Amino acid sequence: MTNKDARTPASVQDDMSQEAGKSIGWHKAYVEGSRPDLRVPVRQVHLTNGQSVTLYDTSGPYTDPLVDTDVRRGLPPFRENWIIARGDTEEYAGRPVRPEDDGIKHTSPRGGLRNLDAVFPGRPRQPRRGRSGQAVTQLAYARRGEITPEMEYVAVRENVSPEVVREEIAAGRAVLPANVNHPEIEPMIIGKRFLVKVNANIGNSAVTSSIEEEVEKMTWATHWGADTVMDLSTGRNIHTTREWVLRNSPVPIGTVPLYQALEKVDGRAEELTWEIYKDTVIEQAEQGVDYMTVHAGVRLPYVPLTANRKTGIVSRGGSIMAAWCLAHHKESFLYENFEELCEILAAYDVTYSLGDGLRPGSIADANDEAQFAELRTLGELNRIAKRFNVQTMIEGPGHVPMHKIKENIDLQQEICDEAPFYTLGPLTTDIAPAYDHITSGIGAAMIAWWGTAMLCYVTPKEHLGLPNRDDVKTGVITYKIAAHAADLAKGHPGAQEWDDALSDARFEFRWEDQFNLALDPDTAREFHDETLPAEPAKTAHFCSMCGPKFCSMKISQDIRREHGGSRGEIEEGMAQKSKEFAASGNRVYLPIAD
Amino acid sequence: MTNKDARTPASVQDDMSQEAGKSIGWHKAYVEGSRPDLRVPVRQVHLTNGQSVTLYDTSGPYTDPLVDTDVRRGLPPFRENWIIARGDTEEYAGRPVRPEDDGIKHTSPRGGLRNLDAVFPGRPRQPRRGRSGQAVTQLAYARRGEITPEMEYVAVRENVSPEVVREEIAAGRAVLPANVNHPEIEPMIIGKRFLVKVNANIGNSAVTSSIEEEVEKMTWATHWGADTVMDLSTGRNIHTTREWVLRNSPVPIGTVPLYQALEKVDGRAEELTWEIYKDTVIEQAEQGVDYMTVHAGVRLPYVPLTANRKTGIVSRGGSIMAAWCLAHHKESFLYENFEELCEILAAYDVTYSLGDGLRPGSIADANDEAQFAELRTLGELNRIAKRFNVQTMIEGPGHVPMHKIKENIDLQQEICDEAPFYTLGPLTTDIAPAYDHITSGIGAAMIAWWGTAMLCYVTPKEHLGLPNRDDVKTGVITYKIAAHAADLAKGHPGAQEWDDALSDARFEFRWEDQFNLALDPDTAREFHDETLPAEPAKTAHFCSMCGPKFCSMKISQDIRREHGGSRGEIEEGMAQKSKEFAASGNRVYLPIAD
Repeated sequence: MTNKDARTPASVQDDMSQEAGKSIGWHKAYVEGSRPDLRVPVRQVHLTNGQSVTLYDTSGPYTDPLVDTDVRRGLPPFRENWIIARGDTEEYAGRPVRPEDDGIKHTSPRGGLRNLDAVFPGRPRQPRRGRSGQAVTQLAYARRGEITPEMEYVAVRENVSPEVVREEIAAGRAVLPANVNHPEIEPMIIGKRFLVKVNANIGNSAVTSSIEEEVEKMTWATHWGADTVMDLSTGRNIHTTREWVLRNSPVPIGTVPLYQALEKVDGRAEELTWEIYKDTVIEQAEQGVDYMTVHAGVRLPYVPLTANRKTGIVSRGGSIMAAWCLAHHKESFLYENFEELCEILAAYDVTYSLGDGLRPGSIADANDEAQFAELRTLGELNRIAKRFNVQTMIEGPGHVPMHKIKENIDLQQEICDEAPFYTLGPLTTDIAPAYDHITSGIGAAMIAWWGTAMLCYVTPKEHLGLPNRDDVKTGVITYKIAAHAADLAKGHPGAQEWDDALSDARFEFRWEDQFNLALDPDTAREFHDETLPAEPAKTAHFCSMCGPKFCSMKISQDIRREHGGSRGEIEEGMAQKSKEFAASGNRVYLPIAD
Repeated sequence: MTNKDARTPASVQDDMSQEAGKSIGWHKAYVEGSRPDLRVPVRQVHLTNGQSVTLYDTSGPYTDPLVDTDVRRGLPPFRENWIIARGDTEEYAGRPVRPEDDGIKHTSPRGGLRNLDAVFPGRPRQPRRGRSGQAVTQLAYARRGEITPEMEYVAVRENVSPEVVREEIAAGRAVLPANVNHPEIEPMIIGKRFLVKVNANIGNSAVTSSIEEEVEKMTWATHWGADTVMDLSTGRNIHTTREWVLRNSPVPIGTVPLYQALEKVDGRAEELTWEIYKDTVIEQAEQGVDYMTVHAGVRLPYVPLTANRKTGIVSRGGSIMAAWCLAHHKESFLYENFEELCEILAAYDVTYSLGDGLRPGSIADANDEAQFAELRTLGELNRIAKRFNVQTMIEGPGHVPMHKIKENIDLQQEICDEAPFYTLGPLTTDIAPAYDHITSGIGAAMIAWWGTAMLCYVTPKEHLGLPNRDDVKTGVITYKIAAHAADLAKGHPGAQEWDDALSDARFEFRWEDQFNLALDPDTAREFHDETLPAEPAKTAHFCSMCGPKFCSMKISQDIRREHGGSRGEIEEGMAQKSKEFAASGNRVYLPIAD
C-alpha cells in the first residue's frame, strides 16, 4: 500500500485491518464503565509468560475484528444517545452546503474539477446545537457538578476517578473536546494531570494530496497512537475532505477555520470579513469539528513587533490576520468579535485552541516581545471564553532553544490560569531540516515534562513538504516517545509499568514480548530479523550485539540467580556461590552454537 | 553502495569522495595556525547571496579533492613531526603480533578462516612510547605550561585562545585524546567549555560484519560528523580490523580492551588475568588507540547491589568484570592494578574513559545504589589517573527518565572533579526499540546542556542488532542535533550563527542555501523534491506546504518591508503604509502559477 495508489477511501479500512493483523500478540479489549454502552477500548498485550499488559488505545473500531467498519458508511455514532439524553440540544436544518465550501466558484471555469463521487455517502444527518443558545459544553456540565458519560469514559481510560476528571475540567485545567455533532469519537481528555497527548496534522494543500490520502493518514495516525488529528487542508474539497475525515475518525478533529475562510475569498486576506469567518465556523461546527484554532491574539499593535524578527510570522493563521490588520489598519476582527464567537462555540461544544500566530519560527526569535505580547492576550481571551463556558486550550511554540523552553510553559500557566498548553515541538535548533521530528521531539519531551498537556507532532517533512504516510507514522511514534518520556518524568501513575514490562521481557530474552510491547512492533521485529532472521533466534538467549559466546544479560541473570534476596543473604552467600560457580565449570555462558 | 557488497576496503574511499561530491555548495577549506603544518579543516558553505558560513569539519582528508587518499596506504601521519620534535618518545621493537590477537588459536581447526589478504598493507612502522616511562601526555604538557601544536590546533577549531585549551586540559576539565602512535588524527578536544562532541560506535561481533564494513562505517560516521569512533569489535580479526580503522581514521579511536582480552580466553571471563589484559592494552596502545574504556569501577562489593535490579548489568565490560569477581570472589584485577595501568597509558598518551559497568539498563534501575557506588569509585580512580598525568574522562548512563538526568551530571561533576562526562544517551524510556536514537537523543540533548562533554550515539538498532551504514548515519545525525541543541542552550559562542544562517535562507526562500546549510543536505533536498521536483521550485517564493496562492513567509516579508526600522517609525508609518498596500491592489501574494 503506497501513497501513489489511486484508490477510493473505501479501501483504506481493509488495509488498516491487515496492518493491524500483522501485529500479533495483542488484541483489542474493552473495559466497561457503569453502563453497558460505556466500553473503553484498550490494547491488551499477551506475553509469553502468561501475563498481559494493558495499554491506552487510540486506534478506534478499525482494530476490532468484531466491528464491521466501512469508510463509506462512517463509524457508529455511539455517543449520540448520551447527547440526546441530556435533552439540551436540538436538531435543525443547518446551513446549506455551498460549492464555495469546497473552493468552487459558480463563475469559476474550474468548477468542473470537483469530483462529485467524493461526496460522503454515509448516513444523512441534521446538525445539532444547544437549545436557544445554551452552552452545552463539558465545562458547563462540570461546573454544575455533573459527571457526564464522556467524563466517566476518560476516567476509565486514564485510570483516575470521574470526580478528578470533572474537577480538572471545571477548573479549566483540562478540556474534553467533543462536539455534539461528532458522536463517533471515543472521548479523551487533555490536561496536565492526565497522560500527555499527541496531535497529528493532516491536510491537503493547493499543490498536492487527495481526499482518500487524508482519510488514510487520519486512520494511520490514530493506528500508531495519535490522540487527536487536525485537518489543515487548504486546497480543493476542503468541506468534503473534512466530512470524510470526521465521519471516520475515532478521535477529536481540530481545524483552523481561517484557512477555509481564506479559500472562500480566493486567498485575498484583506477580503476576509467577520461574516465569512463566522459562516465558516458554523459550517465546520455543524459538521462536528471538535476544536478550532483561532488566532484572535494577533492584534494590530503586535504586527510591527515582528518586523525586525529573523523569520517574521511563520504561522499561516497569524500571517493571514497580520495581513488583514495591515491592509485595513484595523484591530483584528477575531479579537473584536470574540464574544460572539464564544456563543457559537458554546452551542456545539467546540473547544477553543487559541492559536499562537506570533510564535517564533527560528531560534533567534524565541521568547521575544511579539510572542509574549500575544500570550498575554490569549490569557485575556481565555478568561472571556470561560465566561461563556467554552473549553479552551492555548497553543505554544515553535522554535525555542532548550534553555528558553521552561519560561514558555511557566508563563503560559500563569497568564492563562493553567489552561492546557498545546505546543508544536518546540524545535530546539534550526539546522536539521528533514530531521525536525527529532529537533522538536527533544523540546516536546521537555515541555511536556514541565506541564504541556498536548504535543502537536512535527514530521520529517517539516519545512520541506507535506508528510506522506511514512512521515505521519514517524511523526506520531516520535511524539509518543516524547509524551511517554514526559509521563515517566511527571511520575504519572502506572506509566512506568509499560517500561518495566518491556525491560523484563528484554532481560528474560522474551523477544516476541519485547516486540509486541514496543511502540512499533513491526519495525522492532524487522530490525531484529535483519541480523538474525532465523526463527530460533527469537527464543535464543543472546542477540546479535554480542553473539552466543558472551552475553551480559546472561551474566546478570546468573548474578541474580546466585545473589537474589536481601543484601545480608547476598553478602553471606557470596564466597560459597563463588565456589559453586567455579565447580560448575566456570562458564559464564554455555554457547548454544559454535 | 550497500552493505551487502563484498568489497575490499580500498574501494571505500572512492565511494566516499563520490558521496562528498554530491553535496555541492560547500568545499573543504583550511584555517592556518602559527606554523605552516598546522592547518585546521573547516567546511565552507557558499551561499547564493555571496556570503559564506564556516562549519566545524570532522570528515578528514576524504572530502579534500586535493588529497590523494587510499585506504590501503592509510592517511598521512601529519602529526608525526610534532611528536618527534618533542623529543620525549622513542621507537622500539614492540610486542609481536600473534594469531590469537585476531582470535586465532594455533591449535584451532578454524585458523584457516583467517583472511590473510586483510592484513593492512600500508607503511611499516615501529611503535613509539615515552622514554623511560615518561608521561608524554597532553595533560603533562599542559600542567607544565606548554601549549602543544595539538592544543593550538583545537584552539583554532573551537575558536578560543590556546591558553583556554591548555588551562582546561591542565585542570582535568578537558581531554585531548591523541596516542603518540596515532599521528593521523586531526586533534580535537572534549570538555564542557568546548563544543559538545559525538562518538559513533562501530565494530563487528561474533555473528556478523567484516573488516571492510567497519572501515566504511568509520569513514561514513566521520563524514556525517562523528568526532570520535569506538571500535567495539568482538568477533574475528579484532587486531587487523583495528589496524585498518586506525590507519584510516581522521578522528581519535576508542576501544574496550577487555573485549579483545576476553576473546583471547575464548569467552571465559573467569580465565581473564591481569597479564592477559595488560598485554592487550599494550598491543592496542602500540597500534595507536587514543582512548580506552576501562571498567575498573566494577568492584567486588558492588556486584550484589545489582542482584535485585530489573535488568542487572547491561554493560558488556561491566558484566565481564562482575563474572570474574564472582568466579574468584576477589577484588577486580583492574581496580587492584590501576596504578600500573596508569603508567602504561601515560607512556603512549592513551586517555582513560572510565567505564560505567554498572550503568542502568532500564528506567527502573536508574540512579540506583549500584550505579552511584561505582561513580564514587570512578572519582577515586580519576584522582589516581591524574597523579600519573593520564587524561581521563568518565562514562555515564544509560537508561534514565528525564527527571533523574540532572542528578547524574551534577554528581559526576562533583565526584570526579569536573572531569569530562561521556554519556550513552541517556534513553528516557524503554518502550521504543527501533527508535532508541530518539528516546536517547532527548536525554542526550538535556545532559549535554547541563554539562556532558561528549555523547555516545545510539542507533535505531540498539537492543536489536548491529547498526548498518544507514543506522550509523541516523545515529550520528540525531546526536549532532542533540549536541548542537546543547551548544545553543549553553550559549556557546558562535553556535547560533549556523541556525541564523539557515533561518535567513529559509525566510528569503533561498532553498539551495537551506539545503547546503542543513546537517544532512542530501535528505533535505530529497524531501523537498518529493513534493516539488521541478528545478524552478528551488527558487520559487513558496513551498509545498501552502502552495503559491498564500504564503506566511511572503506576508512577513511584506511586513518587514513596510515596517522595518525603529518602533517609533513603525507605528507612525502604519496608517500610511496601510493605504499604500490597499492602493497596490491589496494582494498579499501575487500567484506565480494558478
